[in-house]
Amino acid sequence: MTKVGYIGLGIMGRPCALNLLAAGHELTVSTRTRSKAEEVLEAGATWADSPALVAEASEAVFLNLPDTPDVEQVIFGEEGIASASGFGGLLIDMSTIDPGRTSEIAGELAGQGIGFVDAPVSGGEKGAIEGNLSVMAGGSDTDFERALPLLAVVGERITHAGVAGAGQMVKACNQLLVGSNLMAIAEAMVLAERSGLVSPAVMREAVTGGFADSRCLQVHGQRMVEGTFRPGFKSELHAKDARIVKKMAGQTGTPIGAFDVARDALDQLVESGRGELDDSAVIEIVREQAAEGNPAGTDSPGLDA
Amino acid sequence: MTKVGYIGLGIMGRPCALNLLAAGHELTVSTRTRSKAEEVLEAGATWADSPALVAEASEAVFLNLPDTPDVEQVIFGEEGIASASGFGGLLIDMSTIDPGRTSEIAGELAGQGIGFVDAPVSGGEKGAIEGNLSVMAGGSDTDFERALPLLAVVGERITHAGVAGAGQMVKACNQLLVGSNLMAIAEAMVLAERSGLVSPAVMREAVTGGFADSRCLQVHGQRMVEGTFRPGFKSELHAKDARIVKKMAGQTGTPIGAFDVARDALDQLVESGRGELDDSAVIEIVREQAAEGNPAGTDSPGLDA
Repeated sequence: MTKVGYIGLGIMGRPCALNLLAAGHELTVSTRTRSKAEEVLEAGATWADSPALVAEASEAVFLNLPDTPDVEQVIFGEEGIASASGFGGLLIDMSTIDPGRTSEIAGELAGQGIGFVDAPVSGGEKGAIEGNLSVMAGGSDTDFERALPLLAVVGERITHAGVAGAGQMVKACNQLLVGSNLMAIAEAMVLAERSGLVSPAVMREAVTGGFADSRCLQVHGQRMVEGTFRPGFKSELHAKDARIVKKMAGQTGTPIGAFDVARDALDQLVESGRGELDDSAVIEIVREQAAEGNPAGTDSPGLDA
Repeated sequence: MTKVGYIGLGIMGRPCALNLLAAGHELTVSTRTRSKAEEVLEAGATWADSPALVAEASEAVFLNLPDTPDVEQVIFGEEGIASASGFGGLLIDMSTIDPGRTSEIAGELAGQGIGFVDAPVSGGEKGAIEGNLSVMAGGSDTDFERALPLLAVVGERITHAGVAGAGQMVKACNQLLVGSNLMAIAEAMVLAERSGLVSPAVMREAVTGGFADSRCLQVHGQRMVEGTFRPGFKSELHAKDARIVKKMAGQTGTPIGAFDVARDALDQLVESGRGELDDSAVIEIVREQAAEGNPAGTDSPGLDA
């Protein structure tokens, strides 16, 4: 059994931490808001007052934090993991953050003898509770092999995508694909309903099973038909991930004109106070644009502008 | 057995006609270029000199033509089907054409006592040869039920989507979804390769099975990894279908900003002499835009422009 640390006990972190405890690992935790740790402490975890103290008690520390600055703060901030005396262990970052910055963080930690694996996940709260998350991992072979037995507790489909940062890059691509697929389904459904020729539900049913088929069409397409937009995955979180995609696209000079439209729709959901809705609610933005007779949508400059 | 007419014996029409013959139907055919009919004539079909003469010899006539004007010409042109003396049968249009115009054509034909079913398909040449095309049908219940035994010869998954035009509308949505999915995969793959963190092939493999999964990721994603771009479905045909989507979007005031980027990429393939390549070649356009440092791609105005 391994001495494991866990920092960040939100929707995703809490069930993962509980699964690590249930698998017999010794768990030390710390969170900014101590109340978030209560369930895990009751289940047998030990509290530590800082990330550094978590690291000193652990062979491997999991991070599950909202965004890039949070990860940097917990590692390099005051009483951060990098300041722990004698932690030569392994950091496993399950947050979804900037791939480029991840690669730099791993380099800085390597200089201090700290191993690093980025391990963002997909599968949502359900996957975290059931311990069958998909894990997209980046890191050296040595670090990945050390992390694998612990990752196998929280996930089922674990891919070693490459060097540190590769896991985050795969996650960014995943969020790009899902966002663009949602936008495509939204545009197709609004086109169908405005044509008066076929309902979105019938259209969806008719194209399922062919080349247009996708997990998003099956799952999110059905959510769009039902129109409740209960998450699922909140638009505000997808919008955050979309900013990471956009930043990487800017840094690498990659045109992502199609995804930009999805990203804008997610941003508009957030800006209009609907960030808590499932990301399938992008269809509402397309409907509103159509109702407003927005010319940008029907005559977008696209790639050749 | 039914007396069936077939007009348009190209890549899709020829195998469908052969399957109708093999199923025991009496077949009369006509094509603009008689040589295209040879294989079907050798297999037992009868030649007629005009669409009108095909109709006069048939209870039901299939059309399988390139575009809307071709369908209009064959129906309403000189010696067209509508001018046939005494054809009170059924027209089954398997072409992919304008949904709005289809709905009008059906109305005009109904006035002459001619039944109409639009029945565009997906599944490609392979599906046509094997007789397992997906058929998206529109028309009255009566017309659809008359068409069904014949459609069942050429297809397997046959959806009655609604009134005349509904089949074309579903097909348009299908082509929108496939085009946008291809574009999303292209953007994700180019982003991955330019990041230097993970190869497109590994990224694709890692996200398959999760929410980003799609038939396009499995089939066209693999084609993008291989990079041969052997069709499959030619970019020039997808570009034609994209113009139908664009027209419907314009007529209905539906914003299709994300699909517009895919449509532009397909057009660029055609304009640069690569219209014969599989539509997965849109990744080449994204790569070229990236190499040119195109600012539109990385800072597209999107929906909120």
